Amino acid sequence: LKKVVGDQLNYIPAEIIKKKRNGFPNDAKEIKFIIESYVAGDLPDYQMAAWLMAVFFKGMNKDETSLLTKQMLHSGRSLDFSHLTKLAVDKHSTGGVGDKTSMILAPIAAAAGVPVPMIAGRGLGHTGGTLDKLEAIPGFRIGLSLDEFCKQIETLGVAIIGQTAEICPADKKIYALRDVTGTVESLPLICASIMSKKLAEGIGGLVLDVKYGSGAFMKTLEQAEILADKLMEIGSAHGKRVATLLTNMDQPLGRFIGNSLEIGECISILRNTPFLGHQPSAFNDTRELSLELAGSMIWLSGCAANAEEGLRAAHKALESGRAWQIFEKMCELQGGNLAAIPYTKNTTNVLAPTSGFIYELQTESIGLAALSLGAGRAKASDPVDHTAGIEIHRKLGDKVSEGDILYTLYSNSPQSDRLFARAQETLLASTQISTQPPVLSSLITKRKVN
Amino acid sequence: LKKVVGDQLNYIPAEIIKKKRNGFPNDAKEIKFIIESYVAGDLPDYQMAAWLMAVFFKGMNKDETSLLTKQMLHSGRSLDFSHLTKLAVDKHSTGGVGDKTSMILAPIAAAAGVPVPMIAGRGLGHTGGTLDKLEAIPGFRIGLSLDEFCKQIETLGVAIIGQTAEICPADKKIYALRDVTGTVESLPLICASIMSKKLAEGIGGLVLDVKYGSGAFMKTLEQAEILADKLMEIGSAHGKRVATLLTNMDQPLGRFIGNSLEIGECISILRNTPFLGHQPSAFNDTRELSLELAGSMIWLSGCAANAEEGLRAAHKALESGRAWQIFEKMCELQGGNLAAIPYTKNTTNVLAPTSGFIYELQTESIGLAALSLGAGRAKASDPVDHTAGIEIHRKLGDKVSEGDILYTLYSNSPQSDRLFARAQETLLASTQISTQPPVLSSLITKRKVN
Repeated sequence: LKKVVGDQLNYIPAEIIKKKRNGFPNDAKEIKFIIESYVAGDLPDYQMAAWLMAVFFKGMNKDETSLLTKQMLHSGRSLDFSHLTKLAVDKHSTGGVGDKTSMILAPIAAAAGVPVPMIAGRGLGHTGGTLDKLEAIPGFRIGLSLDEFCKQIETLGVAIIGQTAEICPADKKIYALRDVTGTVESLPLICASIMSKKLAEGIGGLVLDVKYGSGAFMKTLEQAEILADKLMEIGSAHGKRVATLLTNMDQPLGRFIGNSLEIGECISILRNTPFLGHQPSAFNDTRELSLELAGSMIWLSGCAANAEEGLRAAHKALESGRAWQIFEKMCELQGGNLAAIPYTKNTTNVLAPTSGFIYELQTESIGLAALSLGAGRAKASDPVDHTAGIEIHRKLGDKVSEGDILYTLYSNSPQSDRLFARAQETLLASTQISTQPPVLSSLITKRKVN
Repeated sequence: LKKVVGDQLNYIPAEIIKKKRNGFPNDAKEIKFIIESYVAGDLPDYQMAAWLMAVFFKGMNKDETSLLTKQMLHSGRSLDFSHLTKLAVDKHSTGGVGDKTSMILAPIAAAAGVPVPMIAGRGLGHTGGTLDKLEAIPGFRIGLSLDEFCKQIETLGVAIIGQTAEICPADKKIYALRDVTGTVESLPLICASIMSKKLAEGIGGLVLDVKYGSGAFMKTLEQAEILADKLMEIGSAHGKRVATLLTNMDQPLGRFIGNSLEIGECISILRNTPFLGHQPSAFNDTRELSLELAGSMIWLSGCAANAEEGLRAAHKALESGRAWQIFEKMCELQGGNLAAIPYTKNTTNVLAPTSGFIYELQTESIGLAALSLGAGRAKASDPVDHTAGIEIHRKLGDKVSEGDILYTLYSNSPQSDRLFARAQETLLASTQISTQPPVLSSLITKRKVN
């Protein structure tokens, strides 16, 4: 029996595990002990694994989740932007298909005066990741040091980088263990993981894009609201302003899925120029959501008095071309060559097998089809084809005639014929065409603020 | 993500864990993979810990429990007594206070012709262990090799030893992990642990003494029956005859708790001689239960046609003095010097604070009082005082007058005064004296057979 002395009390890990297993909350000292001793290497993986599985079954109350977040946050370095005149604000999305708003809203918010310290993640499973998209820009350095990162936020107002070993090492170690012990799908563990990393960025406010629907992790609005409330509770407990948009993910956002293709869509919106034959207006859903999220960031930062004024400021930043200039400058400072983004000409079209209205899309499967073309990764070590992806010609409610192009598939793989055939099969099975048009949900379904 | 190839399939431990976590049964190949790869050192402790905690919450069905038992059994060496004319039979007790029947029934059964390959355990918590009791006989070797063990069963008919590293190494490794991960209290894990070790003894039949009441792990008859049924199911699945006695443990068995004291009580019964001022008839409950259990062993072995004939044969073996001769011979063969058993003269008495009837005993607390005197161990590494223990002068339903001796406490410790004071306090708090006599349960409450 492993005993470790802490705060003049003997904490016996098996007793802390049993307390949680039996449905009692762990107190602040127990959570501190578990996380600190795990990061220090004193608590072995097997006891952490048993505790995580007990948390999976018994959950955590509001206080426990906040305490866990705090301990994970304090396991590493925290940034500090309190010397700036405006609050630093970031955005977090729970993940969707074709979700590329970060690259648009970050320069918009920065253009409106918001310090945006964005530490982004990679895609895994059916959703893409901001880092993979930025890496489709040749030379773009997502590995700035934290000092370079802070300096760029002070000079330009925005930087986007990947996780570093200094930020929340507890989260890194715990996440790796959760991944191999069947304990990923636990709401308090998910929330603490998300919030500890965001709080470490030194933000004063956070905008959450909590997605629900066929392409989101949460399939219903109700589930998404539970997640949103839990995330906002943690933000409140740490004294942060949090605004949440609950947004519909019953179809991919915009018209492109895949890394360089999504960067192309972002540039089209930021620069107001066509992309692969589409006018910028073809991407109105991506544009609207990016503006709304940026508007809330501008508001939380103190650069606008309320969300409406924030939205107006966001429009101004985008339409004036100032957001595009910031994006160009960010790419320049981080080494990205916008003129060299690779696109492939190796494509094939998926045609409508029948006429009618696009009635329902199995969006998660569409995301997985893009992944199977090479746009994403099934496991962390898989390579990514930055040019691979899917173009969506018909969206929900659109009329379609037999033989119309529904999707264009992109791939640079030498085995593209095989990949195309498999993706086509998935896409046709994921696309329901009906004689009746569907009832459409609004993109932004609900707003919340703490 | 750890992948290991087995039977041409990729078994991904996290997927096996998740399947159990989500309430689905693990199949034969998954259980085989989990146990084999864990024993081989390929499956890490942390994945085993997560799986064990998932089993704690989701349980195991009949098939899973039998498969788990089988895999644990096959992780090490199994003995084989199939060349003998009678089936080898052992007894397992779920543990009680003053439970010393093994030392009596093993020689009785052997005297009646039953091969008795008994691999016994140590005490932990409020219950004593057969090995600790045997070690109160100076020189008694509980560490025979398995070859010596088998040979003694062939020549004498009985041997009692401790666990060896060759028997069920999976159980040893898993139990150590359960102990530190809060996963001990799981019915299928408890049953698989018990049965795998018993089945490895090469038995054809098993008698279970499943105890319920204030001194047992199962406090109610209903809980005890659930445990009994699960143990018997595993026995049936492995083609073994199992007879179960559900026995009452609302008070200690016999009059002595503690290692050398309990050996003294056993010798008194086997030899029909007084012990510390008590006639053998003072130990009628211990005697009756030992005879009943031995009778069932004799029956299952094929040395009697039914339980009644078995009981008659047990009486004959005991009353003829043949069981005592076998016990003496076993001690001689295993190096134990019966003439040198240590008893202490350092005692104190606990007096009745009031007059009335012994109405209720908190038997688990009485067991813990004996432990606190030095008779048992709170953790596996604690030393044991073989002379320490408790003599019970008044049992349930007995009339008592204020100032009568309720208990005599024994200890060889230099700090015996302090130990006596603490044990006395515990015992008085555990002994309820009432003006009314209690309604007594029968010692053997129910019988079952598969």
